[in-house]
Amino acid sequence: MGGSGDKGVEAGAYPARATIRDVAARAGVSIGTASKALNANGRLKQDTIDKVIAAANDLGFRPNAMAQSLHRTRSMTVGVLTNDSFGRFIFPILEALEETLAEHGIAIFMCNATDDPQREQQHVDQLLGKRIDGLLVTARRMDRRPPIAVPGKSMPVIYVFSQTDDPDALCLLPDDRGGAALAVDHLIATGRRRVAHVTGPTEFEAVSLRYQGYLDALTRAGLSPQSDYYRSGAWSEAWGRDAVAQLFGGGIEPPDALFCGNDQIARGAADALRERGLAVPGDVAVVGFDNWDVMALAARPPLSSVDMNLHALGRAAGERLIAMIGGERLAGVERLPCSLVVRQSSGEEPQSAPAPKFQTNKTS
Amino acid sequence: MGGSGDKGVEAGAYPARATIRDVAARAGVSIGTASKALNANGRLKQDTIDKVIAAANDLGFRPNAMAQSLHRTRSMTVGVLTNDSFGRFIFPILEALEETLAEHGIAIFMCNATDDPQREQQHVDQLLGKRIDGLLVTARRMDRRPPIAVPGKSMPVIYVFSQTDDPDALCLLPDDRGGAALAVDHLIATGRRRVAHVTGPTEFEAVSLRYQGYLDALTRAGLSPQSDYYRSGAWSEAWGRDAVAQLFGGGIEPPDALFCGNDQIARGAADALRERGLAVPGDVAVVGFDNWDVMALAARPPLSSVDMNLHALGRAAGERLIAMIGGERLAGVERLPCSLVVRQSSGEEPQSAPAPKFQTNKTS
Repeated sequence: MGGSGDKGVEAGAYPARATIRDVAARAGVSIGTASKALNANGRLKQDTIDKVIAAANDLGFRPNAMAQSLHRTRSMTVGVLTNDSFGRFIFPILEALEETLAEHGIAIFMCNATDDPQREQQHVDQLLGKRIDGLLVTARRMDRRPPIAVPGKSMPVIYVFSQTDDPDALCLLPDDRGGAALAVDHLIATGRRRVAHVTGPTEFEAVSLRYQGYLDALTRAGLSPQSDYYRSGAWSEAWGRDAVAQLFGGGIEPPDALFCGNDQIARGAADALRERGLAVPGDVAVVGFDNWDVMALAARPPLSSVDMNLHALGRAAGERLIAMIGGERLAGVERLPCSLVVRQSSGEEPQSAPAPKFQTNKTS
Repeated sequence: MGGSGDKGVEAGAYPARATIRDVAARAGVSIGTASKALNANGRLKQDTIDKVIAAANDLGFRPNAMAQSLHRTRSMTVGVLTNDSFGRFIFPILEALEETLAEHGIAIFMCNATDDPQREQQHVDQLLGKRIDGLLVTARRMDRRPPIAVPGKSMPVIYVFSQTDDPDALCLLPDDRGGAALAVDHLIATGRRRVAHVTGPTEFEAVSLRYQGYLDALTRAGLSPQSDYYRSGAWSEAWGRDAVAQLFGGGIEPPDALFCGNDQIARGAADALRERGLAVPGDVAVVGFDNWDVMALAARPPLSSVDMNLHALGRAAGERLIAMIGGERLAGVERLPCSLVVRQSSGEEPQSAPAPKFQTNKTS
């Protein structure tokens, strides 16, 4: 267990931070000279600049960015608010967002409101008090949410992997419909004609958009959609297995391809097909959605899957926010393209790649 | 696509924020009175207070927290720095941390340094410039890392799910060794005597700690560890399947239980056992580590697993940081208890629960 020491008075235990006065004293120059040297304005001898910088480094002095921000238009901080916990779709978006903003010297305040409107408003108030330059709102799922109340519209707001009805807000989302069409185009291009769609609960907007994309691709190819081939259930492997039982259990002509609404469904389906003695992709091709490596790579065979390009989405959100902070007005719903990652589950060749080898250390 | 409008000049596109002066004018009171009303100090008539608060609300006025922070000891902000991308272990920690700090009105700056020491130092400098009150350092894996350079030790630093050699830092980690012992104690208590340990790469500290816990439990039960029963490989399902082939392929007495270093290994092992015609848990009990719902619940049968209680770890980190900001000195390595979640894969009864039912909407 960690040691614990004596309780100091408030802020007593950590030494006071160096001020510009301390730096000037150590460098043997005036406060004005020290300030000029550190801010690289005014003409000073290099010798003097070096001396001041050395003193500042010795003392661990950092210019007080907060004080500086009061005298500028911007605080160089933005808020990121989730209305749900940090789901796995959010990580790559946040990573790219943080990376993009950091390149511009902008720091991120993270807040999580776990679907509690009152807590969300407290977070927004706190962020406004910190004079953030902009706000990003994100969520575990992409469905429409109530707009964030920003008094006087004093700040740009972007919804990413989330959307709202506020006409002044910019909403950035993956193009689910286009992504689904990519998957089904691919299945048709590899010779499949009886493509079923096994997906998640119908109340998700993503489910209806992906279904539209599935229909788009069938229509383009002159194929008629069959109602028996559309199956909606849970976002789970168990549902993928169950759907295979429904589709291949008799009573209907079995499909020769499954386009699944996510990788978990696709993985469950691939397992169930194998257990029925059907080869993937030989007898039935399978494509998932999300390109979630944990699922897609561990499946047998590895899954082809639609990638929502969440890193690019996060980067776009960062870039749009910077533009909006700079004065540009952006609004509306922008959908960024998905891409298709083809692996064995929909490849044309039969399953022939050797099983991956892993290093095995037998010790002790 | 989103609409884009005319480019304004800097900050021109968003209206200026209301000041205390605007609030006072709207409420028809002096600036001093408006300030007193909003800060709840000084004696004012309730009527006046209500008028000022209404004016502040109408104008979307927020007291400038940054300006206030300059006049107090604390900025009420802390930094969170990851030295790798936000892995799935980090999210429950961050959620709990954010929740704990928000309860105390403390906001979080998030930074991600993706294992680049130079970028990390830039982040630290930027955070110091923002006068954070404390810093949390976290990582994708728990191994020792170089300490963060904080000039003059002017700020408390906590490493959570991460550790360093700095004797002044507090490191909070799950008790891997204790967690592993819980799992093996449970397997022994349910009658297993030949418990194998199938785990990840030996260079992870977690691997050696979990192995120690495994040995602790065997020793307590008077069982001798067998070198054949310890297998180290990758953190993957494929390795779990491969390890089953090694352990059950002949040449050694097959184990009657597998304690696996993570849930992916455990899931792969459970699949491979089933495919060999061995019943889980009837013939072989399986316990995983991480209690990662996606893996543990989708496995057939659902996996017993050790939970690192990451939410509690995040909450503890928040509480310790608040204490340290308040002046308490804490240092050293503190390991928080894991717990064991028992599901079917190690239950005593044969697999008898009915398959879960999912709602299936057939539409279109």
